[in-house]
Amino acid sequence: MNVDFSSLARTSGEWLRGAGPEADIVMSSRIRLARNLADYPFISRANAGDRTEIERILRDRILSIEEVGALTYVDVNKLALLDRQLLAERQLISRELSDAEGSRGVVLADNEQASLMVNEEDHLRIQVIQSGLNLQSAWEMINQIDDLVEARVTYAFNENLGYLTACPTNVGTGMRVSVMLHLPALVITRQIDKLFRSLQKISLAVRGLYGEGTQAMGDFYQISNQITLGRSEADLVKQVGDVIPTIIDYERKAREFLVRESHENLHDRVSRAYGILRTAQTISSEETMHLLSSVRMGVNLGMINDLEIPTVNKLFIYTQPAHLQKLTGGELDTADRNIERARYLRHLLNKDEHGERGVSQN
Amino acid sequence: MNVDFSSLARTSGEWLRGAGPEADIVMSSRIRLARNLADYPFISRANAGDRTEIERILRDRILSIEEVGALTYVDVNKLALLDRQLLAERQLISRELSDAEGSRGVVLADNEQASLMVNEEDHLRIQVIQSGLNLQSAWEMINQIDDLVEARVTYAFNENLGYLTACPTNVGTGMRVSVMLHLPALVITRQIDKLFRSLQKISLAVRGLYGEGTQAMGDFYQISNQITLGRSEADLVKQVGDVIPTIIDYERKAREFLVRESHENLHDRVSRAYGILRTAQTISSEETMHLLSSVRMGVNLGMINDLEIPTVNKLFIYTQPAHLQKLTGGELDTADRNIERARYLRHLLNKDEHGERGVSQN
Repeated sequence: MNVDFSSLARTSGEWLRGAGPEADIVMSSRIRLARNLADYPFISRANAGDRTEIERILRDRILSIEEVGALTYVDVNKLALLDRQLLAERQLISRELSDAEGSRGVVLADNEQASLMVNEEDHLRIQVIQSGLNLQSAWEMINQIDDLVEARVTYAFNENLGYLTACPTNVGTGMRVSVMLHLPALVITRQIDKLFRSLQKISLAVRGLYGEGTQAMGDFYQISNQITLGRSEADLVKQVGDVIPTIIDYERKAREFLVRESHENLHDRVSRAYGILRTAQTISSEETMHLLSSVRMGVNLGMINDLEIPTVNKLFIYTQPAHLQKLTGGELDTADRNIERARYLRHLLNKDEHGERGVSQN
Repeated sequence: MNVDFSSLARTSGEWLRGAGPEADIVMSSRIRLARNLADYPFISRANAGDRTEIERILRDRILSIEEVGALTYVDVNKLALLDRQLLAERQLISRELSDAEGSRGVVLADNEQASLMVNEEDHLRIQVIQSGLNLQSAWEMINQIDDLVEARVTYAFNENLGYLTACPTNVGTGMRVSVMLHLPALVITRQIDKLFRSLQKISLAVRGLYGEGTQAMGDFYQISNQITLGRSEADLVKQVGDVIPTIIDYERKAREFLVRESHENLHDRVSRAYGILRTAQTISSEETMHLLSSVRMGVNLGMINDLEIPTVNKLFIYTQPAHLQKLTGGELDTADRNIERARYLRHLLNKDEHGERGVSQN
C-alpha cells in the first residue's frame, strides 16, 4: 500500500477537524511514547546494518497489527524532500526524521490519528494526535497500540528505570503529553509570558507549533510535560490535563476582556486580517499564520460568519511551503511560493465568488 | 440664497470630477488672484469697522455680477466650526479664513469652480479650480471674473509694481498658479525628493494637499509658482504649465517601471489597500489617504475594475473629519470618527452587497 502524497496534500488529518472538547482554543491533544528494541544499540551508536534491521523488524511487526485499522508504511529514506516536508508540516513525522539520513520510516494509520516513526532519535516513536482536548482518549489509543507492538517485539526496559531511551530526559515512561493551544488573546493582552513562567515552575514546557526549538507561529503553543521518570503514565496525563482548563479559562477571560473593553479594535483586527487574506497578491507563510490567527479567533467570537473552524485549521497547514507546492504541482522558490500562497488563499476564501470583487486577476 | 451644508457634504465639486486632460495624474488645476481695495488699509492694519465695510462692499458688488451663473455669499463669521472646516476640506476657503475671526466670507459659484474669499490675508482672494490639467481654461475664467469685479471696485494698483498685496511675495500679478498632482509611483520609487529639488531650482514651490505648511497626504502634491512680480499672468501660467507634462511623464515612467519590474508587489499593494478599506472597522484619516492613494493608482492601471476615479477622488475629501461628521450627522471625537470613517468606506466600497462578506456588522 502506497501513500499518494498529492492526494495527502488535499485531504485533512483528524487533528485538523476542529472538533472535540474546547476546540475553539484547543487545536489538538497529542501523546508520544519513545521505545527501543532490547537487542539493538541506540540509534546514535547503531551502524547502517543495525538500522536496516531495526527498520525491517519494526515495519514487519507493526504492519502485522490488525486491531487498529489499515496501516501504511512509508520509507522516508526514499522520499523526495518535498514529501518529507509535507509529512512534517502535517505533524505525521518530526522535522528531525524528515532531515535525517539512512534507513528510517513511518507507519501511518488511515485517519492520521496514529503514526509510528522508526529510527528517529529512538528506534520507535509512537504518536497519537486527536482534535480538541482529548488526552484520555489519546492515552487509551496509544496505550493499546503500545501493547500491540510490545506483544510483537522486546522493548529495552529496566525494572528500576522503566523504558530505556536514547536521551535520558525520556527514560521511564518515554512519554510526552502535549496539548496545542491557540492563545491569541493572551498574546494581545501581553499575559502570555507570565503564563509561561508559571508553567515552567510546575515543570511544564512551552513550545511552538512544530515542537522543540520552533517559534510560536499563529499564536499556537504546545504545553507538555518535561518529566518522564518516576511517575505513572496516568499521572503524566493528569498533570498536563489538569492545567489546561485553567489556561483555557485565562484565554477565554482575555477574549471577553477584549470584546468588552476594546471591541472596535478587536473587530478591526479580525476584519482587516480576513480582508488582507482575501486580497493579498503575495504573502509569506509567517504573515499568513499571523493573520489566520486573528481570523480563527474572529470565527470563534462570531465576528466572521461565513467561515468554519476546520477550514481555518486546514489553511494553517495547507499554506505552509510543502503543502503549497504539492497543491500547486511543483517546486517553487520563495517569491513564487508567496504568490501561489496568496492565490490559494484568495481562491479558498472567495470561493463563493468568481474571484475577489473588483481586483483584476492578471 | 443659503448654502445647505448637509447637502454640500453630499455633493461633489467640479474639481473632484476626475475628468479633464491627464486626470489619472492631475487632480486639479487652480489659479488664485490676490486683490485689495484701494481705499482701505490692508487686513493686518484694518480695524473691525474697516473689515465690516470691506466685506459689505465686496459682497454687494460681487453678487451683482450676472455673467458667471448663480453666486452665493457665505458669512464665514457666522458659521459653526464644522461648516467652516467643511469649506476648507472642500478647498472652497483656506484654512486661514476658516480659523480667523471677525468679518469675513466667501462668494461661491454654483459648480464650486470659482470662490472669492473676502477678508482673508488680502481683501479679496479669487480662486478658480478645475478638474485635470486645465490651466488655460482656469486662467480664462479667473481673468473674466477679475475683470467683472474690477469694473465694480477700485483695486489697489501701482503702475510700476502692479497689484498691491498684504504680503510682498504676492505683489505684481497677485497670482498663484498651481496644479495638484497624484504622484504615488514617484514616492514608491523614491524619486520624489529629487524632483522637488529640481523644481525649487526653477522657482516652483511644492506643497501638500491643503497648501502652504501642510504635509503631502495621499501622495498629492501641489506645484505652484513662487514669483509673482515682473512677469505677465500668461508667463506664469506658461511657466507652471510647461513643467507639468515632464512631471506627468516621470510619474508615468515610474508606474510603467513598477508594473514591469515589480508587478506582483504593486498589485499586492493595490489589492491589499482596497481590501483594508473594505474591511477596516476603525481607520484614521491619514491611513485612509495613504490607502486611497494606492487604490487610485490601481484604478488608473486597470488593477481594480469596479471603481471609478470620481468615486476615489470623492473619498479623499469625504473621509476627512468635517465631511465625515456632516455626513454622519454630528460632532464626533477622534475615536468615533475613525469608526464612522471605516463604516462609511465599507458602505461605499461594498455598496453592491448587503455589507461586507462574512464580517459581522455588530
